Amino acid sequence: MARAKEPVMSAEEVDAYLAEVFPQMQGAERLTRIQEVGPMRARLRLAYSDTTLRPGGTISGPAMMGLADHAMYAVILAHIGKVALAVTTHLSINFMRKPAPADLLAEARIMKLGQRLAAGDVTIWSEGQEGEPAAHAQVTYSIPPEKG
Amino acid sequence: MARAKEPVMSAEEVDAYLAEVFPQMQGAERLTRIQEVGPMRARLRLAYSDTTLRPGGTISGPAMMGLADHAMYAVILAHIGKVALAVTTHLSINFMRKPAPADLLAEARIMKLGQRLAAGDVTIWSEGQEGEPAAHAQVTYSIPPEKG
Amino acid sequence: MARAKEPVMSAEEVDAYLAEVFPQMQGAERLTRIQEVGPMRARLRLAYSDTTLRPGGTISGPAMMGLADHAMYAVILAHIGKVALAVTTHLSINFMRKPAPADLLAEARIMKLGQRLAAGDVTIWSEGQEGEPAAHAQVTYSIPPEKG
Amino acid sequence: MARAKEPVMSAEEVDAYLAEVFPQMQGAERLTRIQEVGPMRARLRLAYSDTTLRPGGTISGPAMMGLADHAMYAVILAHIGKVALAVTTHLSINFMRKPAPADLLAEARIMKLGQRLAAGDVTIWSEGQEGEPAAHAQVTYSIPPEKG
Repeated sequence: MARAKEPVMSAEEVDAYLAEVFPQMQGAERLTRIQEVGPMRARLRLAYSDTTLRPGGTISGPAMMGLADHAMYAVILAHIGKVALAVTTHLSINFMRKPAPADLLAEARIMKLGQRLAAGDVTIWSEGQEGEPAAHAQVTYSIPPEKG
Repeated sequence: MARAKEPVMSAEEVDAYLAEVFPQMQGAERLTRIQEVGPMRARLRLAYSDTTLRPGGTISGPAMMGLADHAMYAVILAHIGKVALAVTTHLSINFMRKPAPADLLAEARIMKLGQRLAAGDVTIWSEGQEGEPAAHAQVTYSIPPEKG
Repeated sequence: MARAKEPVMSAEEVDAYLAEVFPQMQGAERLTRIQEVGPMRARLRLAYSDTTLRPGGTISGPAMMGLADHAMYAVILAHIGKVALAVTTHLSINFMRKPAPADLLAEARIMKLGQRLAAGDVTIWSEGQEGEPAAHAQVTYSIPPEKG
Repeated sequence: MARAKEPVMSAEEVDAYLAEVFPQMQGAERLTRIQEVGPMRARLRLAYSDTTLRPGGTISGPAMMGLADHAMYAVILAHIGKVALAVTTHLSINFMRKPAPADLLAEARIMKLGQRLAAGDVTIWSEGQEGEPAAHAQVTYSIPPEKG
């Protein structure tokens, strides 16, 4: 039951799979890349871009919510393989600091990887400001039953 | 203390103000309109469109998170007036049903409207399926102090 | 799928069942009674008592968290019958106002009643202050599969 | 701005202060001790006891919610000093595994320590099962303004 399980897909494999199954990704989603995956974790980067900004040059809340969701999806896929139909059932996010005008990094951690549910958290910060999170999210995904 | 306070802006005024202060809105945000405002509540509509879809024709989770955030912002503005710098501090969303291929409606309700914080919930459903929510969110905004 | 489903147990039956399966209930739990159940909803009352107070005579946060959890469990039982082993999987609560020195009322609402998960919200207020919630919670329960 | 701030009270001082300001603590609260505090973190222990059990010998959900709340309060006090009136404004908790019949440990982490709000998370596990959390919570406290 979810002891330090090893990933079964690489960062590049997950990125390629997401691009394949979600060809309609747009905005912030297209600007997000998985940088590394490790046991029960993954790190992602959202490139700083005009398309995700709010007045004042701040990355928008919805862009950070999307990043948290994307990050948890990526780390789950990296550990369970190509299961496109996993769906988010819950996301709770605290916005803690205004992001800097810089790329955002997201560290996703799986805390439970069950047969039907996977849950964990995602910490988001502006590049250069690790330890001072812009946001922190809890995310739960429902995993469809495997077909025989 | 937030007893049945009356709105101070109309649906049209809030929509116009959001378009003015967020000229860079895109994707789902551009497809969202405030339909009505009432005491401590507002109803919004997100038009069904290719730009918010996931494989299978389902409206994406991030589009629903953005709608919940947009809806709470709109209902708060409608009650406190033009305060562009209110920022989301927390959002918790449960995804409960796959949305139908239809417009989404969002009913936002203010439960607390304090000097510094406003909090409430947003119920989201596919048009024609009221009573069977696609999602339900709690949203909290921080309100900046008024200038003298 | 969770259209205005009717309750299958009365308020008294749910209270009696909870007392039977949780003989070790204590503190605030022993002071809570189900007042009424209706389609997809229930109302509970937590009697004001020294045992749940914080300095200043305020009912404690944990007492309100327990009440929210108890209320959702009660409304689910009222609709699915005697299933002792349903367990909470998620609870998100906003504390919005200091409760008055009075009984607390809790209105629990089921928004989704699936085969495996039930989700809804609970609004809590001090008697005499309806419309000015002390707290609002989202609660999700996992329902064990029925035995054949 | 909440850079690795050092604690200003020891574990023993926080425990003593909580016992002093909350003489009415009961149940699980009386069984909880702060074990250590460090920069922006603290670890607590809830002793296994009949008073917090559910049928089957499992520690109850409300006991874990209380522990998460207690843990965040303790770590905040350890860093800001004796401020009895800090109040919880939000708590979101995921229950991930049935706790073992053992003491519970809670690791609380401050992610933001502002003038008015402190936010962080708490990971809870059964002694001997570190890395397999029983629960994970986000907790936000409101801090009253200092008096002059």
